[in-house]
Amino acid sequence: MKTNRQWRLRQRPQGQVSTETLELVTEPAPSPADGQILVRNVYLSLDPTNRIWMTDMAQYMPPVALGEVMRGGTIGRVIESRHPAFTPGDWVSGMGQWQDYWCGPGEQMAKLPWDGTLPLTIYSGLLGMIGCTAYFGMLEIGNPQAGDTVVVSGAAGAVGSIAGQLAKIRSARVIGVAGSRAKCDWLVTDCGFDGAIDYRAEDVPARLDALAPDGIDVYFDNVGGAITEAAFDRLNLNARVPLCGLISTYNKPVPTGPRNYHMILMRRAIVRGFIVMDYLPRFSEAIAQLAQWYAAGKIHYRVDVRDGLEHAPAHLNALFDGSNQGKLIVRIADEDEGDRL
Amino acid sequence: MKTNRQWRLRQRPQGQVSTETLELVTEPAPSPADGQILVRNVYLSLDPTNRIWMTDMAQYMPPVALGEVMRGGTIGRVIESRHPAFTPGDWVSGMGQWQDYWCGPGEQMAKLPWDGTLPLTIYSGLLGMIGCTAYFGMLEIGNPQAGDTVVVSGAAGAVGSIAGQLAKIRSARVIGVAGSRAKCDWLVTDCGFDGAIDYRAEDVPARLDALAPDGIDVYFDNVGGAITEAAFDRLNLNARVPLCGLISTYNKPVPTGPRNYHMILMRRAIVRGFIVMDYLPRFSEAIAQLAQWYAAGKIHYRVDVRDGLEHAPAHLNALFDGSNQGKLIVRIADEDEGDRL
Repeated sequence: MKTNRQWRLRQRPQGQVSTETLELVTEPAPSPADGQILVRNVYLSLDPTNRIWMTDMAQYMPPVALGEVMRGGTIGRVIESRHPAFTPGDWVSGMGQWQDYWCGPGEQMAKLPWDGTLPLTIYSGLLGMIGCTAYFGMLEIGNPQAGDTVVVSGAAGAVGSIAGQLAKIRSARVIGVAGSRAKCDWLVTDCGFDGAIDYRAEDVPARLDALAPDGIDVYFDNVGGAITEAAFDRLNLNARVPLCGLISTYNKPVPTGPRNYHMILMRRAIVRGFIVMDYLPRFSEAIAQLAQWYAAGKIHYRVDVRDGLEHAPAHLNALFDGSNQGKLIVRIADEDEGDRL
Repeated sequence: MKTNRQWRLRQRPQGQVSTETLELVTEPAPSPADGQILVRNVYLSLDPTNRIWMTDMAQYMPPVALGEVMRGGTIGRVIESRHPAFTPGDWVSGMGQWQDYWCGPGEQMAKLPWDGTLPLTIYSGLLGMIGCTAYFGMLEIGNPQAGDTVVVSGAAGAVGSIAGQLAKIRSARVIGVAGSRAKCDWLVTDCGFDGAIDYRAEDVPARLDALAPDGIDVYFDNVGGAITEAAFDRLNLNARVPLCGLISTYNKPVPTGPRNYHMILMRRAIVRGFIVMDYLPRFSEAIAQLAQWYAAGKIHYRVDVRDGLEHAPAHLNALFDGSNQGKLIVRIADEDEGDRL
């Protein structure tokens, strides 16, 4: 009998996720019922939005209930199938949970077309919900035109770095705001950003004045807080603000908004909150386009794979202290584990 | 020689407009040069946005410079013309100034098609920029559908009362938030709102829960502040927030934004700042439609005409203490003054 480690939500976090927030419990792995599949989870995607799901604040999906296994995007391999469309050995991804094994209706997982050419983790990132988030948020909501100035916060993050490069493909001038000199260097040198601001070491308003002297036409926001206030002060008329995330506020006990909210009025700007699931019917379009740009070398992308389901809560905090470098993914098992069975 | 009283901006206001803010000076009325017209101002429109123009905060038009005559929408009568398209006796409206006489290029004023059927002041309100603001803000940005719940702040104001009635024409459920029981009664009894909340006497969040139990699909915002926070907490998925004004914040020394700004993200809402001038090419469409609805009794509208250019600064404060009832207009001269000349 297989042992299934599970991270269950014990209490709703105040501030950053602590050892009290989640509890690692062990159960026997379930057996699939008719129509179900049993999946060996191999990768777990860690994303800022996970922190939202742990709270009971108003949000866009139901929060994770206390006692439930924590929700998360996963990539895994079917090891047992009682669903006609799945065969043991199939690779699947979907909205899973923080555990070794997932068992449920086959319809809840998508088969991955993985042929070994690309790293498997890319389906948790560029060619998954991350890439689609950047694609629709930047190209549909931000809609940068050639010559526009685009500012991306959380720019070295998984979504931000792709969003900025998509604006470059549209021939915009792109400035990123990120949390270290190394991240800024990567944005400019590898990702082709026109400039980057280290918000921990630099004066963001002054640097925006220098790097975006003509104001901001698109502000792709992942963070909220003071960086958003600096961007708002510099919005151009009819600016677009795709609101993708507010990571600087998730760990705060009391929410805050930009003090200069009035700039939305003064600059007749559009702020639009979105989640990638709004665009589900168009995922295949986005993924095909992103794959083509990636193959052509137009998008640089990196992952930060960390070992051990047992360390998942600690790894999640890396998103909030800025210590990750690229799409954060937990390796739960070796990719070839299934081959050895 | 005619005497021209002018309100010139002396200093930028802190808090409400005081006797120090503007200075009443008297000059001889100018004579028109070639291509210019001399207009006897009869009505001056007072609007919350006037307060913005007095400051040097970032805004959508240049602020009024210190020493300049204060800017404002006017209706007046041509008394001297050196422009081929204008004849003495013509009624005109446009962006004028707080003074007895206006002199400038004819192109800056629009001739009014006034035949005496409707009150002349309607061109400063329902059939002018006020009506167009409500029309485009509600119908284009808010875009309420039958059965939607619409909340309007500043609902008894000139724009708000029209905006709410336009949503009623679209068969939405409309709740207004206003500053007195009398205003609320007027909204429900005369304007056909489904409910109204007196924010000075009632608990706005609790009343919204009662009157908008299914949440808010369109929040037409004129005020900002705590009322906006209460509305944000109740936004439905994909809600639209036409951001027309933030009157509760204009007199504050330090700007504030809604603390629950994150609701834009969580409910995947759109907040869009706008000013009516964005829709200038479509004004005639809006005015024709508004006039038709008004004639059909579908829009109730009232004006609050107050006498005396010399009292204009005090009258302006009525917009901020909520003591006006309807579109606020200053009568500078009698309508028939020109006939007596």
